[in-house]
Amino acid sequence: MPKHGSDRILNPASEARVRASFARQGLMRHLGAELHLVESGLVTIRLPYRSELTQQHGFFHAGATSAIADSAGGYAGYTLFPDDSSVLTIEFKINLVAPAQGELLEAIGKVVRSGRSLTICQMEVFGIADGKRTLVAIGQQTLMCMHGKPDPQEVLAPATPT
Amino acid sequence: MPKHGSDRILNPASEARVRASFARQGLMRHLGAELHLVESGLVTIRLPYRSELTQQHGFFHAGATSAIADSAGGYAGYTLFPDDSSVLTIEFKINLVAPAQGELLEAIGKVVRSGRSLTICQMEVFGIADGKRTLVAIGQQTLMCMHGKPDPQEVLAPATPT
Amino acid sequence: MPKHGSDRILNPASEARVRASFARQGLMRHLGAELHLVESGLVTIRLPYRSELTQQHGFFHAGATSAIADSAGGYAGYTLFPDDSSVLTIEFKINLVAPAQGELLEAIGKVVRSGRSLTICQMEVFGIADGKRTLVAIGQQTLMCMHGKPDPQEVLAPATPT
Amino acid sequence: MPKHGSDRILNPASEARVRASFARQGLMRHLGAELHLVESGLVTIRLPYRSELTQQHGFFHAGATSAIADSAGGYAGYTLFPDDSSVLTIEFKINLVAPAQGELLEAIGKVVRSGRSLTICQMEVFGIADGKRTLVAIGQQTLMCMHGKPDPQEVLAPATPT
Repeated sequence: MPKHGSDRILNPASEARVRASFARQGLMRHLGAELHLVESGLVTIRLPYRSELTQQHGFFHAGATSAIADSAGGYAGYTLFPDDSSVLTIEFKINLVAPAQGELLEAIGKVVRSGRSLTICQMEVFGIADGKRTLVAIGQQTLMCMHGKPDPQEVLAPATPT
Repeated sequence: MPKHGSDRILNPASEARVRASFARQGLMRHLGAELHLVESGLVTIRLPYRSELTQQHGFFHAGATSAIADSAGGYAGYTLFPDDSSVLTIEFKINLVAPAQGELLEAIGKVVRSGRSLTICQMEVFGIADGKRTLVAIGQQTLMCMHGKPDPQEVLAPATPT
Repeated sequence: MPKHGSDRILNPASEARVRASFARQGLMRHLGAELHLVESGLVTIRLPYRSELTQQHGFFHAGATSAIADSAGGYAGYTLFPDDSSVLTIEFKINLVAPAQGELLEAIGKVVRSGRSLTICQMEVFGIADGKRTLVAIGQQTLMCMHGKPDPQEVLAPATPT
Repeated sequence: MPKHGSDRILNPASEARVRASFARQGLMRHLGAELHLVESGLVTIRLPYRSELTQQHGFFHAGATSAIADSAGGYAGYTLFPDDSSVLTIEFKINLVAPAQGELLEAIGKVVRSGRSLTICQMEVFGIADGKRTLVAIGQQTLMCMHGKPDPQEVLAPATPT
């Protein structure tokens, strides 16, 4: 889906703002998710396999798949938002097209259309096993840009690994 | 939405099967989610607030809200499935209608229509603060019944709290 | 789902505004859809069966089911909007839970949460045959209130029946 | 999104089966929709503008946009189904990302994953005005393959234009 290239280069300040916001998401840290690519309108998040992320058959739980898909889409949108704003998910929908398995999941969030208040994203999640990528989920998402309401500035204390 | 009553009483063996399957979900335990009501076609899950569940503003992350909504719907469907089956989420959609805050979230999953292979559920998630319930999310979900493929029987070792 | 009662009574001017807007929807007229109940936060639309509305098996086409569900939700939201506004559908999702058949379909749109810019609705569609109602679809929808942008005032010329 | 090329060539019998099924959809004919490309896993449908397709501002109604998106996805899936089967939409979701305007709409349905019973599609709808294409909607859809239940064979009488 996404092309990575020069047209997606993001200024360093915006990337830093996205990475700082991601670091404030207690859930991403608790799941062990890592923010990977941060480009203009495109973000990827990786989630290594752990038994703490499973459903009853030992696959990644749809809730884990959805959580990184939602954050990937949300931060893809946030790369395009003005400085004094924050991002809120209005709704999303996800189709789980194959069992979510592998050494890690990679969620790709990509902006389809960005407006002043609403931004629409598509998400893809891949399971990666032995270097082979398998599409496990696709999603669509609506974001709201909260103008004049930037993220809280206080930095959360670093959590001990869980 | 759901009425709790005598028409929803589930036989003890089916309830035990649902509770055993929930206990196999590593993610639910990792999040701190608790299976609450298990009735015929209706399941509720509670999730106490922790900083490990937050998004960047300190609310519950949409991924946490979605995870318990997905499991509540999935197990609501599973209460109606035959013994030698398991449950798989095909897709779901969620609207986040208010900030997910409070001492705990409660997700209610309820079967709307149950067929041989596909079951459709509605979900509601409430934030509970000082005894006051606020609707924070609504969802719709499609489940598949995996006939002849029951959950794996090995019991996971009890995890230490995370 | 919806309770019809005194708390849903709408002032006559608002009802007239909704009915005038519905009359501007060329598609509703072309399909033969009729605006039925218009209450505060709740609207129903009826669609009598015609071969012009079918899919390949002779049931109502999912597009017809969706169209009246979308309009029912949209106008349910519009009943709560200020005078100088109009309504726009941002997104919707629909589960088709049973074959859409019968002498007519009835779509019920109901507001779940109404905010300044965004409103979230649930929709149900029933097939009615020999007085028996069968749930055929459920949906969720996000609407935007376009403040300061009322509907165009020119009345469309009455169409000849199609 | 879709690449049109030699890997998408469909055998003539399958294309004929899809075109015959489309011709049975009374709604598509009533709306004035035309089946355009029929390739392996990809179908496009075009819908010329008429006042009979409008919402209250004169744009294409979301119900019209959804109807051709649903049929495009459904028939994209159907190109991959066995001979003695038919196709049913289980659910779909659509984001309306821009006003649906232009001389015509074009819906593209594309199979993302095709399984024995369930097939998942993505849809895009473009408004075309003066040769310029604008993305107006994106969607996701789940289809069911009804094995052993082909379309009814009786051909509908040709309708007079409406």
